[in-house]
Amino acid sequence: MIKITLPDGSVREYEAGVTAHQVAASISSGLAKAVVSAEVNGEVWDLMRPIQNDSSIKLLKFDDEGGKSTFWHSSAHLMAEAVEFYYPGAKFWVGPAVEHGFYYDIDLGGTKLSAEDLEKLEQKMKELAAQDNKFVRTEKPKAEAVSYFTEKGDEYKLDLLQGLNDGEITFYTQGKFTDLCRGPHIPSTGLIKAIKLTSLAGAYWKGDERNKQLTRIYGITFPKQQQLDDHLKMLEEAKLRDHRQLGKDLEIFAFDDDVGPGLPLWLPKGAALIEKLEELAKKNEKQQGYVRVKSPHIAKESMYIRSGHLPYYADSMFPPMELDGTKYYLKAMNCPHHHKIFAATPKSYRDLPLRLAEYGTCYRYEQSGELFGLMRVRSLQMNDAHIYCTKSQFEEEFMKVNELYVKYFKIFGIEKYVMRFSKHEPSKLGQKYIDNAQLWLETEEMVRNVLIKSGLPFKEVADEAAFYGPKIDIQIWSAIGREFTIATNQVDFAQAERFDLSFTNENNEKERPIIIHRAPLSTHERFIGFLLEHYAGKFPVWLAPEQVAILPISEKFTDFGKKVLAQLKDAGVEATLDERPEKIGRKIRDTELRKVPYMLVIGEKEMNENAVAVRRQGQGDQGVKPVNDFIEQLLSEIAEYR
Amino acid sequence: MIKITLPDGSVREYEAGVTAHQVAASISSGLAKAVVSAEVNGEVWDLMRPIQNDSSIKLLKFDDEGGKSTFWHSSAHLMAEAVEFYYPGAKFWVGPAVEHGFYYDIDLGGTKLSAEDLEKLEQKMKELAAQDNKFVRTEKPKAEAVSYFTEKGDEYKLDLLQGLNDGEITFYTQGKFTDLCRGPHIPSTGLIKAIKLTSLAGAYWKGDERNKQLTRIYGITFPKQQQLDDHLKMLEEAKLRDHRQLGKDLEIFAFDDDVGPGLPLWLPKGAALIEKLEELAKKNEKQQGYVRVKSPHIAKESMYIRSGHLPYYADSMFPPMELDGTKYYLKAMNCPHHHKIFAATPKSYRDLPLRLAEYGTCYRYEQSGELFGLMRVRSLQMNDAHIYCTKSQFEEEFMKVNELYVKYFKIFGIEKYVMRFSKHEPSKLGQKYIDNAQLWLETEEMVRNVLIKSGLPFKEVADEAAFYGPKIDIQIWSAIGREFTIATNQVDFAQAERFDLSFTNENNEKERPIIIHRAPLSTHERFIGFLLEHYAGKFPVWLAPEQVAILPISEKFTDFGKKVLAQLKDAGVEATLDERPEKIGRKIRDTELRKVPYMLVIGEKEMNENAVAVRRQGQGDQGVKPVNDFIEQLLSEIAEYR
Repeated sequence: MIKITLPDGSVREYEAGVTAHQVAASISSGLAKAVVSAEVNGEVWDLMRPIQNDSSIKLLKFDDEGGKSTFWHSSAHLMAEAVEFYYPGAKFWVGPAVEHGFYYDIDLGGTKLSAEDLEKLEQKMKELAAQDNKFVRTEKPKAEAVSYFTEKGDEYKLDLLQGLNDGEITFYTQGKFTDLCRGPHIPSTGLIKAIKLTSLAGAYWKGDERNKQLTRIYGITFPKQQQLDDHLKMLEEAKLRDHRQLGKDLEIFAFDDDVGPGLPLWLPKGAALIEKLEELAKKNEKQQGYVRVKSPHIAKESMYIRSGHLPYYADSMFPPMELDGTKYYLKAMNCPHHHKIFAATPKSYRDLPLRLAEYGTCYRYEQSGELFGLMRVRSLQMNDAHIYCTKSQFEEEFMKVNELYVKYFKIFGIEKYVMRFSKHEPSKLGQKYIDNAQLWLETEEMVRNVLIKSGLPFKEVADEAAFYGPKIDIQIWSAIGREFTIATNQVDFAQAERFDLSFTNENNEKERPIIIHRAPLSTHERFIGFLLEHYAGKFPVWLAPEQVAILPISEKFTDFGKKVLAQLKDAGVEATLDERPEKIGRKIRDTELRKVPYMLVIGEKEMNENAVAVRRQGQGDQGVKPVNDFIEQLLSEIAEYR
Repeated sequence: MIKITLPDGSVREYEAGVTAHQVAASISSGLAKAVVSAEVNGEVWDLMRPIQNDSSIKLLKFDDEGGKSTFWHSSAHLMAEAVEFYYPGAKFWVGPAVEHGFYYDIDLGGTKLSAEDLEKLEQKMKELAAQDNKFVRTEKPKAEAVSYFTEKGDEYKLDLLQGLNDGEITFYTQGKFTDLCRGPHIPSTGLIKAIKLTSLAGAYWKGDERNKQLTRIYGITFPKQQQLDDHLKMLEEAKLRDHRQLGKDLEIFAFDDDVGPGLPLWLPKGAALIEKLEELAKKNEKQQGYVRVKSPHIAKESMYIRSGHLPYYADSMFPPMELDGTKYYLKAMNCPHHHKIFAATPKSYRDLPLRLAEYGTCYRYEQSGELFGLMRVRSLQMNDAHIYCTKSQFEEEFMKVNELYVKYFKIFGIEKYVMRFSKHEPSKLGQKYIDNAQLWLETEEMVRNVLIKSGLPFKEVADEAAFYGPKIDIQIWSAIGREFTIATNQVDFAQAERFDLSFTNENNEKERPIIIHRAPLSTHERFIGFLLEHYAGKFPVWLAPEQVAILPISEKFTDFGKKVLAQLKDAGVEATLDERPEKIGRKIRDTELRKVPYMLVIGEKEMNENAVAVRRQGQGDQGVKPVNDFIEQLLSEIAEYR
């Protein structure tokens, strides 16, 4: 008998050779149907693989991260089976799970696929899935594997085999398809109930354009048809809310060939959004005792050698400018500059915590193929701050950072979010992680305590910390359920050493501060990109660059319109007056296209009563209101987010 | 008889050969004593030089720009006479007038001068001045001049002679000293009543470090002793108000070796000043209908070739970064980016005037020897905006820009200022100036009209316009009478063409906008540098980064102090509480060093009465006031500047 420990700490005994699937079945038959794979001692395994020794296991459903990737990787094999059916002799390179679904890179020997071919393949996959074929795992010695693929003439798999040794080589077979694969896989193809092949692309073998171009087929699958329907609906909705199109239509930002790719120009309405976000950040940061600083966008090479960014991070930085024999770099992050500001005057414990904030613009090199609207850019205006504190101040400071996140989530109506807490891996101390086991454990414990205390949803992830401390990636979901990673908090106990930062403590000794890096509002680029999708461009009134549009029914009411406009402007409202000699229907349609929260239509009746006919975007006619009443109501709506 | 036209348009008749000095004497004997030289048909002449033909003349006193430089250039000759007296065989290179005084570069053949030598020379100059020797002008043929200096063994003057031709060569003699010189000079040395040799420096011949090092002696002179006394006092005061020292003492900014020279880091108090200035700018710009934009700090080479900055301005720009085979440059000005934003969406006459504002950071290369505190830097945060308007809108727009200047001058207590209106020179159209005579005349007339209408003090300067239009340099004087050029307004009728900017006018035709470049609050660097001197670091309360310091007499009153602090912060006041266990005298002294406008001392009496003992910087004790009364009074003082 072996002992199986479950995530809740309970221990059950089974015969050696039990499978995770049997463990699930022993708990409930519903669970046995829902599981797709299992984490066995931290590694994702096939459900059907026999477990021989005492183990900790976590059963994974489709919705678990490891579950989803198993499901999609198996779907890639299913697709390969369909491809081999129609295109015998096709050679397969790799077929991984990705963020949404899977792909497989295939050498079709000159055959070009069409949209109809994709449909045909999709049909075949459905057939094969319905056969509910088992995924069967077999281990093979290397020599046998090599001779198998040599015979088959598959240079791709032979290439993969080069890096593998005896004992590491496994094959998976389902139905008539066999693949070299380390797994894991779902028990059988029948779990795959909904299938969509989404697109075709060319992909150079190993990503190198000197190599042969393979055919890449993308797809996505689900255990239920409803999930696929929801996903496709979300994609369609996301297309309607595409931040690039909205950004153009609403005149938020523009790109220009003479400026350069990935370098957005912010048009007046985009800059107005930026101003509002900065105002929000400054107000909240001031309340929490931050002070602001300003630093140049460049620094000497020596700065980044000191920080450790050079040479390791050089590929992500802009190339240097050589001046007076010295290399200067555009800053890719604000931290080194802030450390220098910390160091510019002597510090005592009375100065801590010191919270240095700056909406600094950083520049990072992304390959032009990677650039994507505001989501992947080369210039980043970051809601940055660095908190320098003592160890005893850490928990409170970190707690306040989290409170700020939650406050912002509420303001922007972000209902789903998770803090992904990335920890170190003890076996990699001194290599991937700074070598101070005690400090790691202490700091991670402090971070965990804060996360628990603040009641935030979080998940712990092993072996993904930063070199110099644990980090927390903040994941949020937009109104249509798309996931965005907006920001990272980092705890840093290494940079203070590198920059020789210290303060005089109560005992008159030098001590190093702990540093918290944080950017709750992310970069303007990413956050405004997110907000465009999240709100579909229909910004709440406090944030809208144009809050009110006044639409006179005819030119006769322009003067009254000017009076209302002046009143609104005096009240600090961003308002416009449509003086064009157009019909009111046209004016309303044009204003709707600009997604202005309030339209005030004015005609004879309104002028005589010093009133406005109010139309609220998305809510329609709100009736005629005296001008002063409308302004009062508007101002209280604007103030609400505070 | 010849006709002499005076600046007021009056015409007088004199015998041919009359001198400007005789003209002055014919007007009044006081005037004859005060004049130092004269502008004859636009050229500065000796007062004693005979005028043979009908001419326009302007008599120059010491206070006129041309007068001062004549006076100081003559003083350089006087100094040279004293040098030759003590150091026979000294060879003289050039001795020009500069902004404040004059210098002469001299080869003393190895002799090193000391401070005592300077005093000795100063004494001798006074003696020679008292002799009231005349400056006598003689023309010489080149051959004679060459043989004179060859005999004397003076390679420096021989070098100067190389570039001169017969008819251009004049000598000036006063007392025992003769120099090759184009003049003009004052009539006699007796006008020089106050003399100070201020410093010594080494200067390579022709500024080339491969050449011999000459001795440079700096001095300054005045027609009255009182003027010299005032000047020396101003210099002393300026030293006490040195913005570099104040910036360090008040923790406004810092430089760091790893960041680089000329690239200030703005510490929290400096950033607070920046925030206040930006708030001021944004408020006023919003009132005047500006919209804000945001642009990257870099652009492709093609942008600057289009704007015409490359290759001509390349020396003043940072060197390029080469990325994906394209050169990128740090922006040295915001205009090209703003033009691109203008062009990003189609414009109609209804969109004009369009006023695009951005506190953009530009980067300019200054040689490291030229860098000076905040006054000469490599990073510049500019109060920039570009106004795109039609010709008929120009006057009103330009008027409003000037109004903004005057408003700011009032806010900052700048009492003396002049707009220096630089015009084109018709003979240089097509070379130094864009070739459109009509447009130049029209635009200059428009600018002149606005300057006259707005009642601003201005002076017109020929041949100093920008390539693409007239410009106005704004000169202001600090509280101690030092002059600063803070900003430039430019009228631009060329860039719209280069960037193909246009709008659709009322007749549905494409038309080019006129562009006004303006930056009334200059750059943060220059303006804060100016303000540090202007206020001697004692910022008015609305601007002060730390507005109020609360000083408890002992720790017993800390809690009450915290209460007052919270009240002040709630009111939006930047306040601090001195919780150190120090004596009150020490706390007061430390706070005075930080130049905080208000100190609130609190003890038993104050705590019992919920009051504070108010000390106003520079005004001393203001008595005990209830906390609420103090806050109310403070807020109204802060609001006053608005």
